[in-house]
Amino acid sequence: MNVKTKLSDYINNYREKIEKEYKHYLQNLSIPIQLKNSMLYSLEAGGKRLRPVLLLASYEAYGSDIQKVLSSAVALEMVHTYSLIHDDLPAMDDDDYRRGKLTNHKVFNEATAILAGDALLTYSFALIANDPLLNDREKVNIISRLSVCSGPKGMVGGQILDMEAENKAVSLDEMEQIHALKTGELLKFAIYTGAYVGKATDKQLSHLTDFAYYLGLIFQVQDDILDVTGEQEKIGKPVGSDEGNLKSTYPKLLGLNGAILQKEVYVEKAKQALQDAGAQTSNLMDLTDYFSNRDH
Amino acid sequence: MNVKTKLSDYINNYREKIEKEYKHYLQNLSIPIQLKNSMLYSLEAGGKRLRPVLLLASYEAYGSDIQKVLSSAVALEMVHTYSLIHDDLPAMDDDDYRRGKLTNHKVFNEATAILAGDALLTYSFALIANDPLLNDREKVNIISRLSVCSGPKGMVGGQILDMEAENKAVSLDEMEQIHALKTGELLKFAIYTGAYVGKATDKQLSHLTDFAYYLGLIFQVQDDILDVTGEQEKIGKPVGSDEGNLKSTYPKLLGLNGAILQKEVYVEKAKQALQDAGAQTSNLMDLTDYFSNRDH
Repeated sequence: MNVKTKLSDYINNYREKIEKEYKHYLQNLSIPIQLKNSMLYSLEAGGKRLRPVLLLASYEAYGSDIQKVLSSAVALEMVHTYSLIHDDLPAMDDDDYRRGKLTNHKVFNEATAILAGDALLTYSFALIANDPLLNDREKVNIISRLSVCSGPKGMVGGQILDMEAENKAVSLDEMEQIHALKTGELLKFAIYTGAYVGKATDKQLSHLTDFAYYLGLIFQVQDDILDVTGEQEKIGKPVGSDEGNLKSTYPKLLGLNGAILQKEVYVEKAKQALQDAGAQTSNLMDLTDYFSNRDH
Repeated sequence: MNVKTKLSDYINNYREKIEKEYKHYLQNLSIPIQLKNSMLYSLEAGGKRLRPVLLLASYEAYGSDIQKVLSSAVALEMVHTYSLIHDDLPAMDDDDYRRGKLTNHKVFNEATAILAGDALLTYSFALIANDPLLNDREKVNIISRLSVCSGPKGMVGGQILDMEAENKAVSLDEMEQIHALKTGELLKFAIYTGAYVGKATDKQLSHLTDFAYYLGLIFQVQDDILDVTGEQEKIGKPVGSDEGNLKSTYPKLLGLNGAILQKEVYVEKAKQALQDAGAQTSNLMDLTDYFSNRDH
């Protein structure tokens, strides 16, 4: 079995674990049926589960009982999903489709979509707080991180900056700051939380924070590259959709080749950080290449 | 000094404490300025701070160091404020004014209002998780309650039911369930959390949960009564605004006198629960009358 197939199996295996888990949590939740349907619809809408898979992979590099991080992984996917629902709203990006499926507010209605997002965000904290496998110290630490990474200092702050940067030219530095907040902070949460619960040392955690930072940038550069070179049916949106507006992208700022070279620099730095964190033999190494070379 | 003036001073004193506290938290937060302005705008928009005042009063009935519950009180006010911002959105209630001031999305824009709500909700959990005066057990317990009371099983669930009940006739039982979720759950959080941190016994906490339930109903009946009998400049919205739609209210279901009698029943039950909880000499007793007789 080659590396790519092995990694693919690995990702699929964890993806199924996570999907089984969130269904279990939500199905047992006694809440209004329309709200549950709306929450489930977006959770089911076929994400790649990259964030929770990264969280599990990061845990695995240090710890051994994967059950201990399942609630954090599901909470993370819920927070990510809520952010997509709100992002797609008419007042925000006004998207009718995501990953080839109708967006939440198109299937339900705007009010329900807003509330389903609110519910997913809110419930994610209860999931962690009520996990019998975590001790109180761990719960507080994870909740504090999730709140900070996804809140005004993290993801939501990045969304505001991203909105303000639309239709104006921004520098590479400014763009990196936006990406670091908007997408990087949740990746940081994934990498940090897995390793933290797995009892990585503070020094290792510090190197992993660097790793997560570069991984976030790799993710974004590749997104921008795919917008230029990708195939529409794979990436689920029209190729070149960034081109028409003034939105800053890596290929626009550096040219396509420049963007590819920049990505290689980030990959090197990410792998170095993994090595410094003692995680050079973990699946995080292969996942870095996977992120860097993905075609959708 | 009569009871009313004394209680008024009491409320004002705690209100100022809470306002000082959230300003302190937000001003030290390094986040995009437009986001901070939007969050602060709605926090400042002149609420009565009833929920956090109730939390402090509930703490005071059992504990002595009020500092221990300030983060919970501010978190509660932030969650309440986020719910108002989202409730006022065009896709929801579509309100241009609240308490005589322009709503968040009218001053900023819809996207910023959605994100400011998200930010307030998310940040409230970090506030509690990072409070140095609480131990880990207390933090986990408070966060779990806040998440459950404000999430799909609580407030957000009530908002969905309330939306579904618009323009259709509902029974008194159904209406009470909606109110219990939509407004009652946050009051329950306030009453429970104060007493819990103040080290009330489990039995006392159980009676206080009953108290909070009736208090929520008192709050709602009086709201409905004021919609019929109130003065527009005091209640901040046109008198009779519930009349034109099919929305179920206590006066519609029971008549105005029936609604007043129903309120008296709830007041009796609330006070009995306070007595059972050993809180008969606390300010919660006077606050119950205050809620019952408020004119705005």
